[in-house]
Amino acid sequence: MPDSIKSLRVNGERLWSRLMQMATIGATRSGGCNRQALSDADMAGRKLLKQWAEAAGCTVRVDAIGNLFARRAGSEDCLAVVMTGSHLDTQPTGGKFDGVYGVLAGLEVIESLNDHAVKTRHPVELCVWCNEEGSRFSMAMMGSAVWSGSYPLSKALGLTDRAGISVRDELTRAGFPTHMEQRQAVKASFEAHIEQGPVLEQKAITIGVVTGVQHMSRHEVLIEGQEAHAGPTPMDMRRDPVRVLADLLPAMYAATAQHGPSARFTVGCIETQPGSPNTVPGQLRFTVDIRHPDGAQYAALKAAIGRLVKEALERHRLPGGMQCFWEAPGVTFDAACVSAVRSAAETLGFKAWDMVSGAGHDSCNVAAVAPTAMVFVPCAGGLSHNEAESAAPADLEAGANVLLHAMLPMALPHA
Amino acid sequence: MPDSIKSLRVNGERLWSRLMQMATIGATRSGGCNRQALSDADMAGRKLLKQWAEAAGCTVRVDAIGNLFARRAGSEDCLAVVMTGSHLDTQPTGGKFDGVYGVLAGLEVIESLNDHAVKTRHPVELCVWCNEEGSRFSMAMMGSAVWSGSYPLSKALGLTDRAGISVRDELTRAGFPTHMEQRQAVKASFEAHIEQGPVLEQKAITIGVVTGVQHMSRHEVLIEGQEAHAGPTPMDMRRDPVRVLADLLPAMYAATAQHGPSARFTVGCIETQPGSPNTVPGQLRFTVDIRHPDGAQYAALKAAIGRLVKEALERHRLPGGMQCFWEAPGVTFDAACVSAVRSAAETLGFKAWDMVSGAGHDSCNVAAVAPTAMVFVPCAGGLSHNEAESAAPADLEAGANVLLHAMLPMALPHA
Repeated sequence: MPDSIKSLRVNGERLWSRLMQMATIGATRSGGCNRQALSDADMAGRKLLKQWAEAAGCTVRVDAIGNLFARRAGSEDCLAVVMTGSHLDTQPTGGKFDGVYGVLAGLEVIESLNDHAVKTRHPVELCVWCNEEGSRFSMAMMGSAVWSGSYPLSKALGLTDRAGISVRDELTRAGFPTHMEQRQAVKASFEAHIEQGPVLEQKAITIGVVTGVQHMSRHEVLIEGQEAHAGPTPMDMRRDPVRVLADLLPAMYAATAQHGPSARFTVGCIETQPGSPNTVPGQLRFTVDIRHPDGAQYAALKAAIGRLVKEALERHRLPGGMQCFWEAPGVTFDAACVSAVRSAAETLGFKAWDMVSGAGHDSCNVAAVAPTAMVFVPCAGGLSHNEAESAAPADLEAGANVLLHAMLPMALPHA
Repeated sequence: MPDSIKSLRVNGERLWSRLMQMATIGATRSGGCNRQALSDADMAGRKLLKQWAEAAGCTVRVDAIGNLFARRAGSEDCLAVVMTGSHLDTQPTGGKFDGVYGVLAGLEVIESLNDHAVKTRHPVELCVWCNEEGSRFSMAMMGSAVWSGSYPLSKALGLTDRAGISVRDELTRAGFPTHMEQRQAVKASFEAHIEQGPVLEQKAITIGVVTGVQHMSRHEVLIEGQEAHAGPTPMDMRRDPVRVLADLLPAMYAATAQHGPSARFTVGCIETQPGSPNTVPGQLRFTVDIRHPDGAQYAALKAAIGRLVKEALERHRLPGGMQCFWEAPGVTFDAACVSAVRSAAETLGFKAWDMVSGAGHDSCNVAAVAPTAMVFVPCAGGLSHNEAESAAPADLEAGANVLLHAMLPMALPHA
């Protein structure tokens, strides 16, 4: 690789300025963004991105599920594309960086190739996946799922928001094509993203080399007790579901600890019915989110948690159970793509750290059909899905440079 | 006491028939009653009671807070009254017996005295205390509190329901007097009530001789954590309030057990914020209801629970605390009145059991100014504040007979 290529760097100021410009669309009072999928704000964000991409010489097209592709032609344009991208839609009280950073870092790669008149052999494509957040139309990573073939187009088009407006309605309103294009061959795909966790910041590491995504599932535990008056009912005559919770919680945290530091166990929601201070609850529900990067450990932890529920219910002779309501298998990213990210960080002299993503991303869907990896950068306090989401300009620039140098060897003539 | 008096019995069929008639007023679809205090249904219930009482030769009057008194004159009518009564108002999804039974058992005592032409020396008064439930106007035992002088009339009149209607508005609408009568001297007061707990039923005992009411208080525990994504945030980097709950619940149940079988500890309500399955809660609140019949044990248990909260918060370095939002000191009923109930049950040949009420009753207020005791009868499954509330006619009749024979020695010439 010639030194002129090795010394190629993105324009960090342009990247930051575009992040701030994009953040004005759907800006919330508390400094965040509300650009829910296919809303007017999301459409305005995509329009701005299209203008930038076309000004950078890209050909922009949209597919039948609303994914946007901005293509920078290669010298052998029929070859498989080198892809990058993420999403522009946000949570209702989202931040300026989740998703947006991956899109604008990808645009910055294309701009930087232009700045230095670098011609790649393979075409380079920037993707904006439609409805990654799943907050308005409740299917996260929708566009990439349809694109990769893991979710039927017709089902996705039929999803509706709370007002009864369907994805199809919104895509029709936008005048998007109604037939899905044939998915083209992809040589490699990369996604830059804020970590959404506190690890890089706390370890003072600039680049997370993402080797895969955790196995994860969500469950609901239901414990049926019997409502009773808090006063006249002796403790040993109660069918108190909180007593079962008192057994379960410490045992569940202990089981999680037994599965190593990568295990994750979260009780996000606890509800008691009827929820009166002087009534023993008749019913208790709580959610359990279980994650682990290792498939065998994940399965073992999930089984252990399930066993604890079963045993506790039997011990207390109360009906109930644990039901899985969502599960996503873990993903191992492509070794060559991961290695490209690691080498890029090394070459650029950034402290890097191999890590597994705790959250799902569009790259999980892309990885099912193309060699894929991700680049993480730190975010303040690990905060995301939050209007206070924040990241340092220097880290964002570093991540975009790593993205550029991970993609270049894949796209250049002598790759 | 002459044998004719000893063999006096109430008319159980009339009692049951009146309970069923009263239950048609404000009847709910699921077989319960909705006669919230001073509502049209409550007024209709009181009107029916007044008709019955007047037909039984009583003089009926209402005081400025809506308490209704039906007086059967004594042969020395200036002497202190022997009182009995309870309340006719119900919870929104209340049952047919809570409160109502005490009123109609009292009426049945008067009717039975009439049936057998028994003239008492002391006047006998049946009271219907206003707004015992505190569900519409949120102050439980309101009428008896004002009557006994523990709560100011003006404050009670100013209480409003959710629609902004005040107690004063409703009393004015009913045309009740606006000045509180001078409280007359009370020789003794008795209240019959369903147990609202499972003990009598499970022990196959007909009569609960109520020696007092538990000390009780309600508290809210607040634990402030930090919202974090369930995936990317390692367990040891979380500020997870559920982890504190996992420590607290078993320790709290254990502390309760250390304070003997009479201790009561209830977590009725647990709430997580924001309550999303894949977010570590930023905040957790739960209620704690603590009761014990013994003052020293009650204070010790309350202190132990508070200490556990403080220690757990310190151990986990999370802000929060426990705040008492309601407390009612325990009541010890009058020894002579309790003994009258016990003797009556013995004389009548019923299995009886000394017990402490776990719930508050109007008799707690009455006990502050007059010798008082209560009679409990079993209710199915210990259920109350529930449309499925149920009690056996034979038990209700037994309780009314005990009430009659506890009151008679107090009211008769040779008491």
